[in-house]
Amino acid sequence: MLRVMAALIQELMAGQTRALARALTLAENGDAQLLAELDAHNATAPQPRRIGVTGPPGAGKSTLVSALVKHLRINGATRVGVVAVDPSSPFGGGALLGDRLRMSEHALDPGVFVRSMAARGHFGGLAAGCEDTCELLALAGYDPVIVETVGVGQSEVEIAGVADTTVVVLTPSAGDSVQALKAGIMEIADVVLINKADKPGADRLAEDVKEGLELRAHPPAGQPMWQPPILQAVATTGQGIDALAQALQSHATFMADHKLLAATRRKRAQARLLDLAAAALSQALQGPGALGDRFAQLRAQVEQGQIAPRAAVALLLQTLGK
Amino acid sequence: MLRVMAALIQELMAGQTRALARALTLAENGDAQLLAELDAHNATAPQPRRIGVTGPPGAGKSTLVSALVKHLRINGATRVGVVAVDPSSPFGGGALLGDRLRMSEHALDPGVFVRSMAARGHFGGLAAGCEDTCELLALAGYDPVIVETVGVGQSEVEIAGVADTTVVVLTPSAGDSVQALKAGIMEIADVVLINKADKPGADRLAEDVKEGLELRAHPPAGQPMWQPPILQAVATTGQGIDALAQALQSHATFMADHKLLAATRRKRAQARLLDLAAAALSQALQGPGALGDRFAQLRAQVEQGQIAPRAAVALLLQTLGK
Repeated sequence: MLRVMAALIQELMAGQTRALARALTLAENGDAQLLAELDAHNATAPQPRRIGVTGPPGAGKSTLVSALVKHLRINGATRVGVVAVDPSSPFGGGALLGDRLRMSEHALDPGVFVRSMAARGHFGGLAAGCEDTCELLALAGYDPVIVETVGVGQSEVEIAGVADTTVVVLTPSAGDSVQALKAGIMEIADVVLINKADKPGADRLAEDVKEGLELRAHPPAGQPMWQPPILQAVATTGQGIDALAQALQSHATFMADHKLLAATRRKRAQARLLDLAAAALSQALQGPGALGDRFAQLRAQVEQGQIAPRAAVALLLQTLGK
Repeated sequence: MLRVMAALIQELMAGQTRALARALTLAENGDAQLLAELDAHNATAPQPRRIGVTGPPGAGKSTLVSALVKHLRINGATRVGVVAVDPSSPFGGGALLGDRLRMSEHALDPGVFVRSMAARGHFGGLAAGCEDTCELLALAGYDPVIVETVGVGQSEVEIAGVADTTVVVLTPSAGDSVQALKAGIMEIADVVLINKADKPGADRLAEDVKEGLELRAHPPAGQPMWQPPILQAVATTGQGIDALAQALQSHATFMADHKLLAATRRKRAQARLLDLAAAALSQALQGPGALGDRFAQLRAQVEQGQIAPRAAVALLLQTLGK
């Protein structure tokens, strides 16, 4: 079986789209052999640039990503991968609707691969699943890999951790100036892009964003600070996409010049290991084995009113020798 | 110290708002003694009705909740509690902005208590924090407790688990019919309320919702199925709020008649125990103690490239005797 998986990874690395699609599905189902094989290859593989695109619903992220993909393809990128993460969608991996609706203009371009991921159906959580998907695309030679996250909330901040450069997309619609300037979003932005900039209010929003960015925490003394550019674009017409691509390049250069990329990726790897471990423990709580047995026992005691929930958790930790 | 906490809980149960506010802050900071005291009292306390209100941003949830609170207060509810959960807000407990902006019309009503909760600053996660807040409000005699969740995504589905009855609020604005009819939202709806029903498209949206609801999974054979009513309202004028209150009452009666409330709450308690345990384990991974030491050791091996991430996690589980 492991040999089958090794062969699948080889086919995928040779550029066979069908092998890539199959591997992605296996990864989403938590296939242990495929994932072990992925881990083994991934340790030595070069890592492509990862660009995150996030922002509130209706900001036109998909259209923007589509325009960016077009720009990258025209300007020399051989293979561009897109991972569209929608934590609010209940559909499972390889989501039918998403892949088809999104970026239909690239449907005939073999140099573009789009994968949609939804909240459910991801063994080990969405963040871990997104990381696996990015790594498989990397092995298949896609560079850059663009991770688009739909939705607002914690998820987008977590997902931002998978990218080297994060673009926050906003629009000058009513209410956004308050909603979007939340520190959580501002903190993750490497580039702020005001989309639909032909609508009234774009300059005002740019001012608000500028003020919001000034409130960001400063890096430790001696460390260089990146100033996120605030761009305006109209993704539907392609206006401003050149400037976006340049800003992405500038950020990549800044990261490389200051040797920040390695640190970013190391932090990402650490966060991922913690995610994987936490997910495995959470699963072990509900499964067979010593930890699951002990938890089931404590849960029965809680249900019979013999012990309070938090006291049960304390006893569980004691079991672990903590 | 435990005696101080016991006294605080007594003051809170005697209706002292200041004690409640203090206890909420302590709970949000993960104060172990306060939480133990809460657990002890909560086991025997009667549980108030919990109403969840959720939906996409801009649906007018806050205005709706405000109108519902007014209706409940006029119709005999002595104390109404509101927990406003905003997973996209970075502000910590007792959020300044939220409490003030929201429901300012109830600011002078001592029978209404509003607490805002944001994504960060909650020891043990937002879902666990929301549960603690609801329980403290229950001990202080607030009934019903309304949990309003702002945002889209996984969080709202999780938060829906804290309510006995969940109202999904939608609006007839463009795009919503696709965005909002996601199965994830439809599955959690006990009542669907189309707000801003004076705008064009409300009837059309109601039709879409009806179709969406027909796709829901059926309960096991023999179990009664609740048909979520689809209501229309204009929260700003109060139109349709009577009907909403009636629908909430009908659902409560249905749950009671079919003895479903106990099962719902049991399921909620189980989910909560799992949440608490998973959060504690995740924290233990990063802390001192046997589990944290082992994890730190494995992490170092991963960073030195001696072992792949998933292999490290497998070894970690072995340590636990799984």
